[in-house]
Amino acid sequence: MSTLQKKRLSYQPAIPNSLKDLNAVQLQEQKEGRKPSEHLKKFFPKTFSQSPVLLSEGVVKQTRPLRIGALFSGGMASGGHNVLVGLFHALKKIQSQSQLFGILNGPKGLIENQAKELQEKEIGSYFNQGGFDCLGTGRTKIETEEQFASSLNTCKDLNLDGLVIIGGDDSNTNAAFLAEYFLQKGLKTQVVGVPKTIDGDLRSQDIEISFGFDSACKTYSEIIGNIARDAISAKKYYHFIKLMGRSASHIALECALATHPNLAFIGEEKKSLNAIVEEIATLICERFEKKKEYGVILIPEGLIEFIPEMKTLIALLNHSPPENLPLPEKKLFDELPKDIQKQILIDRDPHGNIQVSQIDTEALLIELVKKELKKRSFRGKFSAQGHFLGYEGRSCFPSNFDANYGYSLGMLAALCLRDGLTGVICAMQNLHLPPKKWELKAVPILHLMHLEIRNGKEKCVIEKTLVDLTSKPFVLFSGKRNRWRLEDDYQYPGPIQFFGDSEITDTVPITLL
Amino acid sequence: MSTLQKKRLSYQPAIPNSLKDLNAVQLQEQKEGRKPSEHLKKFFPKTFSQSPVLLSEGVVKQTRPLRIGALFSGGMASGGHNVLVGLFHALKKIQSQSQLFGILNGPKGLIENQAKELQEKEIGSYFNQGGFDCLGTGRTKIETEEQFASSLNTCKDLNLDGLVIIGGDDSNTNAAFLAEYFLQKGLKTQVVGVPKTIDGDLRSQDIEISFGFDSACKTYSEIIGNIARDAISAKKYYHFIKLMGRSASHIALECALATHPNLAFIGEEKKSLNAIVEEIATLICERFEKKKEYGVILIPEGLIEFIPEMKTLIALLNHSPPENLPLPEKKLFDELPKDIQKQILIDRDPHGNIQVSQIDTEALLIELVKKELKKRSFRGKFSAQGHFLGYEGRSCFPSNFDANYGYSLGMLAALCLRDGLTGVICAMQNLHLPPKKWELKAVPILHLMHLEIRNGKEKCVIEKTLVDLTSKPFVLFSGKRNRWRLEDDYQYPGPIQFFGDSEITDTVPITLL
Repeated sequence: MSTLQKKRLSYQPAIPNSLKDLNAVQLQEQKEGRKPSEHLKKFFPKTFSQSPVLLSEGVVKQTRPLRIGALFSGGMASGGHNVLVGLFHALKKIQSQSQLFGILNGPKGLIENQAKELQEKEIGSYFNQGGFDCLGTGRTKIETEEQFASSLNTCKDLNLDGLVIIGGDDSNTNAAFLAEYFLQKGLKTQVVGVPKTIDGDLRSQDIEISFGFDSACKTYSEIIGNIARDAISAKKYYHFIKLMGRSASHIALECALATHPNLAFIGEEKKSLNAIVEEIATLICERFEKKKEYGVILIPEGLIEFIPEMKTLIALLNHSPPENLPLPEKKLFDELPKDIQKQILIDRDPHGNIQVSQIDTEALLIELVKKELKKRSFRGKFSAQGHFLGYEGRSCFPSNFDANYGYSLGMLAALCLRDGLTGVICAMQNLHLPPKKWELKAVPILHLMHLEIRNGKEKCVIEKTLVDLTSKPFVLFSGKRNRWRLEDDYQYPGPIQFFGDSEITDTVPITLL
Repeated sequence: MSTLQKKRLSYQPAIPNSLKDLNAVQLQEQKEGRKPSEHLKKFFPKTFSQSPVLLSEGVVKQTRPLRIGALFSGGMASGGHNVLVGLFHALKKIQSQSQLFGILNGPKGLIENQAKELQEKEIGSYFNQGGFDCLGTGRTKIETEEQFASSLNTCKDLNLDGLVIIGGDDSNTNAAFLAEYFLQKGLKTQVVGVPKTIDGDLRSQDIEISFGFDSACKTYSEIIGNIARDAISAKKYYHFIKLMGRSASHIALECALATHPNLAFIGEEKKSLNAIVEEIATLICERFEKKKEYGVILIPEGLIEFIPEMKTLIALLNHSPPENLPLPEKKLFDELPKDIQKQILIDRDPHGNIQVSQIDTEALLIELVKKELKKRSFRGKFSAQGHFLGYEGRSCFPSNFDANYGYSLGMLAALCLRDGLTGVICAMQNLHLPPKKWELKAVPILHLMHLEIRNGKEKCVIEKTLVDLTSKPFVLFSGKRNRWRLEDDYQYPGPIQFFGDSEITDTVPITLL
């Protein structure tokens, strides 16, 4: 173990006041809660009429020992190990004979009955550490009747009172279905979801942010700041930095607010490809007039999906070869750089669909901007460097915020199980305040879901929360971005700090402020 | 300014005991010093017979105010701003009327007389900060008679008593020539070099390491650790991580010792391309047997230059098209992936030479390994992700080590100027001990130089120091690497910490230990 790994083991996460004495609190139904969409009723007869619950004062009698399973699902997010540790500690506090079983390698491990009992010593070595390696993870979705039955068998076999699914929108959708299925089959196993994703798109009125977003954004912002300082020192390059994050641009927005790049695109603005290219080219021309031949441009990974004409093009190419494209799309395709054309045509997912996330957006934009500058007879120099920030930030050491948040979420999940809830997701509010003031809830997952028609079939899904162009963080950004274009107002947030003043160790995402 | 930027402004670098009272020390000639190569004599008649000097006790009388210029040269290295601040503070301590002039944008600013006087307030805002943006930098070499004359005119115009060149091997070679030239022309301006480069290849018996190496390696190691934790959590990808650093593999070696990847190539081992590809393929097959389909592989940027057959191929291609290659090289070229062939043929420097650093080594290896695995009928999955770590680490906040080291080097440069030295480079020893125990020297730059024949012409250059395969760091690495192949012994160093225990804030490069 590195020195920092060892030091972080002894960090004691700050927790909400309501988690200080677990015997003095109880999750209690809120009568005035919202209702789920009526369309969901037929899919969820057993769990449809649940209400949100709030953690409030209450007296808890002695509880029997609980046998709980937990699994990670999907991509890593820092703070995940702390969910496990918080869950473990709370279960032991509730009843010292309680047991926690780790389900290995994601939902696949649930289907295939791969699990291990977690002991104090082992789980303790993951305290405040990054990654999901204590259990591993996976992207398997539990969809077929067979998979549901196998999952049920695993829970039966392990004699689980509850199952905690730590995952994003798809995984929590799965959690809702499992909860319903288990009830229908008369299985005692309750299912509780914990909101995880660095993308920041799993939000609701009750879920302000998922854990992992803060650490990932801070790590990306450290790197962006370093690159910006490199840019302004060398004065040679335009850095095109693509940021991980599926469709929504929350990460790009947060990192832009933290680092003040010259440009940052927010997919949700739905600019056309032309408009984006022209905006960059104009920036380069204007900066050249100010003798600046360098800059920093942030590009969300999902940008391409929001560009209307690219969306159409990709939808068409999913079903027909480029030579059969209608004229406008044919023209657009022909104007794309050859490498990108190749990438679009070759890299398909197992269903034959184009893998939008594989498209080298930064390379695409660099090529198109070069063309555009040529068209404008640009007299300056345009040298570009492309970057993709992704794997650097998903498994980093959790920031104090994510360490506290993950740990508290794990404890809350334990309370949900103790108090008999199923089909709910853990939620905390007032996250911009110090942890002791956080307000704890459990929300029926159905309240986040709606019915969609996909390929002619009805599907119940949790809608991804996109960047709201009327929200305060976006308004703040759009009020400042014009100044960042030509003046260099780069901020260098530097590496995440774990020791010293809380002013520097305990910051929360700017988006929450 | 970000919170960390502000906080770091108040960090007081630790300095050697000998710098605590500048009036009580003096640089004194060492009689038993080494001699430069005799071949250099004709190029350096004035400066040839200089001896190394050691900072020792001595009594200094009142000094007149000094007018000093300073410039950055070449790529960024963290700690550079502290060299300026240390120089500034020491000059003011030596004589409060002394002045420091910043030469802008590197050697070009010296030739073109672009300078500004640095004031306490401005320079203070760069204290303990990354980048070179206080002055900017550049890669211009002072080579022609005209450039030497212009540089002399700038020094005359600014009436400089001394000039500090903060740079790597080429820039310090330049410093030696300028010192000689100024003496020949009867100009009073002394020239002092400061060893800068993240690459770690500017070393000698007296120069243990240049500043910037530590911060860059720590930043890269943070990222490599994060990626390794991602790899072991997701268990999906082999990450091929290319690390900046010209020919020598010091960065790769330091990062390997800090993170324990499954494989790390050290260019100086001069493995053939085939051997490298087979080594990776064998690793993948053996790990597959252990059910591990992920891993982390470090690749130094200069690797390709060390591969004997690639070296020959590139030398041939510099002068003739691929169709005229001799058979073995033709075969090698034909076996390269198409994209790499294109890259080699198209990207040339202004002299028409292939830009080896532009070759996508990580993509090349990934492609060749795919082929090799196919040849071996590999039954597992091989998914690879390529990364290039470079701009992320050159301009980061300096680690305490680099902040201390840079600041002390700046102070030492001031003493060299006060004590009448020219053509010397600042050097410190015992860097693995706490700063108070560092030993300070100034070494004639000629002692680092030798005569080379390049394109039929004699050239005096500082030889780059490569990784010594008999040195302790390499021996340590080669004793451990076999264990790292199949067992996952990843270390996660995490982000650089500036506050808290010195055990975590004041570490030195592993290479120095």
